[in-house]
Amino acid sequence: MNINALDKIAKLKPIIWEKIQEYLPSKDPKKHYEMVCEYPKRQGKYIRPGLIILSSQMFGIDDYKKALLSAAAMQVCEDWILIHDDIEDHSLERRHKPALHIMHGDELAINAGDALHIIMWRILGDNVRLLGSEIGWKIFDKMSDIIEKTIEGQFLEINWICKNQINITEKEYFRMIDIKAGYYTIVGPLQLGAILTKRSAKELDKIEEWGICIGRAFQIWDDVMNLIVSSEKQGKERAGDILEGKRTLILIHALDKCTKSEKDKIIKIYTKKRQEKTEQEKDYVLNLMEKYGSIKYAKKRARDYVSQAKEIFDENTAHLSNTSSKQAIRGLIDFVVNREK
Amino acid sequence: MNINALDKIAKLKPIIWEKIQEYLPSKDPKKHYEMVCEYPKRQGKYIRPGLIILSSQMFGIDDYKKALLSAAAMQVCEDWILIHDDIEDHSLERRHKPALHIMHGDELAINAGDALHIIMWRILGDNVRLLGSEIGWKIFDKMSDIIEKTIEGQFLEINWICKNQINITEKEYFRMIDIKAGYYTIVGPLQLGAILTKRSAKELDKIEEWGICIGRAFQIWDDVMNLIVSSEKQGKERAGDILEGKRTLILIHALDKCTKSEKDKIIKIYTKKRQEKTEQEKDYVLNLMEKYGSIKYAKKRARDYVSQAKEIFDENTAHLSNTSSKQAIRGLIDFVVNREK
Repeated sequence: MNINALDKIAKLKPIIWEKIQEYLPSKDPKKHYEMVCEYPKRQGKYIRPGLIILSSQMFGIDDYKKALLSAAAMQVCEDWILIHDDIEDHSLERRHKPALHIMHGDELAINAGDALHIIMWRILGDNVRLLGSEIGWKIFDKMSDIIEKTIEGQFLEINWICKNQINITEKEYFRMIDIKAGYYTIVGPLQLGAILTKRSAKELDKIEEWGICIGRAFQIWDDVMNLIVSSEKQGKERAGDILEGKRTLILIHALDKCTKSEKDKIIKIYTKKRQEKTEQEKDYVLNLMEKYGSIKYAKKRARDYVSQAKEIFDENTAHLSNTSSKQAIRGLIDFVVNREK
Repeated sequence: MNINALDKIAKLKPIIWEKIQEYLPSKDPKKHYEMVCEYPKRQGKYIRPGLIILSSQMFGIDDYKKALLSAAAMQVCEDWILIHDDIEDHSLERRHKPALHIMHGDELAINAGDALHIIMWRILGDNVRLLGSEIGWKIFDKMSDIIEKTIEGQFLEINWICKNQINITEKEYFRMIDIKAGYYTIVGPLQLGAILTKRSAKELDKIEEWGICIGRAFQIWDDVMNLIVSSEKQGKERAGDILEGKRTLILIHALDKCTKSEKDKIIKIYTKKRQEKTEQEKDYVLNLMEKYGSIKYAKKRARDYVSQAKEIFDENTAHLSNTSSKQAIRGLIDFVVNREK
């Protein structure tokens, strides 16, 4: 039986969204709260909160509603982080619309992000009161760890850009994406689901093993899609990562394979600020990435991580019943390298 | 007996700081955590956390150590808010040193502020576990309300600046400072102290009455000091508020009293960005504020609020023993308009 995890997540999305709405204030100052609610209302794919619920089901939760507040907090987390990340990354668009700071300026957007951040902790506080101390505090503390790691990863990434450090090793790259993306997007949500069913620390460690592989595949694939999928489909500018100066596995590969003069030119382009980069310069880098097979290389690496993830997943989840949620998560691993955005 | 509240707070400061240090991480990425710890290490006057402890003592707490985590969270709150506010207000200096975003850029500073924000919630979570559910959650929820209000106030203030709205009424001004400064700096900390001793909702409301008067006096005096105290003493540029375009009671008064052409010129100056304003323009505004007695007017208003605060304080705290903490808080009301920074 082929269970589509995305269908399952799509069905959970309105339920999670309803829960989030209970926490989104609609009061004065009106403009402020419109900003606070802007990203939540645009919604995302709800992969992270969806994964929490699927994971809790895979690990045998008796009622998925017990996972709802954790899922709501996770999505609100994603939304406040995106408000701040979009400023830090100088992103122009988010979910098919202008980024919040483009609409209202950095000052008000930073402030709105902080207001949304508070709401996440309110949900987490209520979650402790709902679930009781034993599980509730574990979720609270785990969320705190997940966000701390994400922020560390964001530091690593933007520090490279601020310091114009372009020659990154694969090791440094993986350290960054493991904490920024792997832990945040995959391992964290999966572990939260396991915590909800009182799984042991040992089982949480096992999740990390296969989750990190999915995370790597996910991030590498994300970076590939950014370069090859049309702006329309992505909801943000195609190859915006080049303009933002993002260090990706593709860039690392291209810099390793190209000639000295090409490398110098890439570095010169990446050293420029976003607004100083031209379309021609973006295309120049993109063409080199294609010419040296860097995109192909990254796709292969992503697929290899998917294979590895599936292998460790099968080994480590053999003791769990073959529920539709388990099949969905297994199916999601493949989806990581079969999606277009 | 004349009890100096500042001496009391100064004695509490190292104890609160010791508690904060337990939560400040010293790990990799090193540069990131140095940024996160930069403002906490510079320390402030610790007025807010000090007030929590003094208030808890005035209301009869048996051991002030029970108030320590709440106090630590309050100071960490102040520090992360300042990191973000300094970016939003385009401030150059903080506590005698360059603002964090001046040292490291907006991107890394926003991110470091978020990391410090997380630490505040960790402390508040531990506080619930330490104090137990009844009081602990009340503190947690009250802190959440205090920060929400502070952020709303910050919105009101920066929205005026972003929208070049200069003609503010006194009513609008007081709405902003009541939630941004009054509630955050005075009412909130005092109420937290009262919550720690299980005081009733009615008593919390009473605190608000006199606390708001202190808050107004505090903010007006702050704005006066910004204009008249030397840069050296303030730890930030003298009359920086004019450069930042801050709407103050002094500005409102000056705009009301000056000639049409002077008003137009002030508005023109305030419409400029900070870096576009010259020293001459700053002095021009400052001279008009002096010429029309706006600084004198603000000082009088601040002193009137101090009198009002003392009157309501005496009326509403008559049932409390005349402890040294009560005397200290009473003394602090006078201090508000007797300080130079």
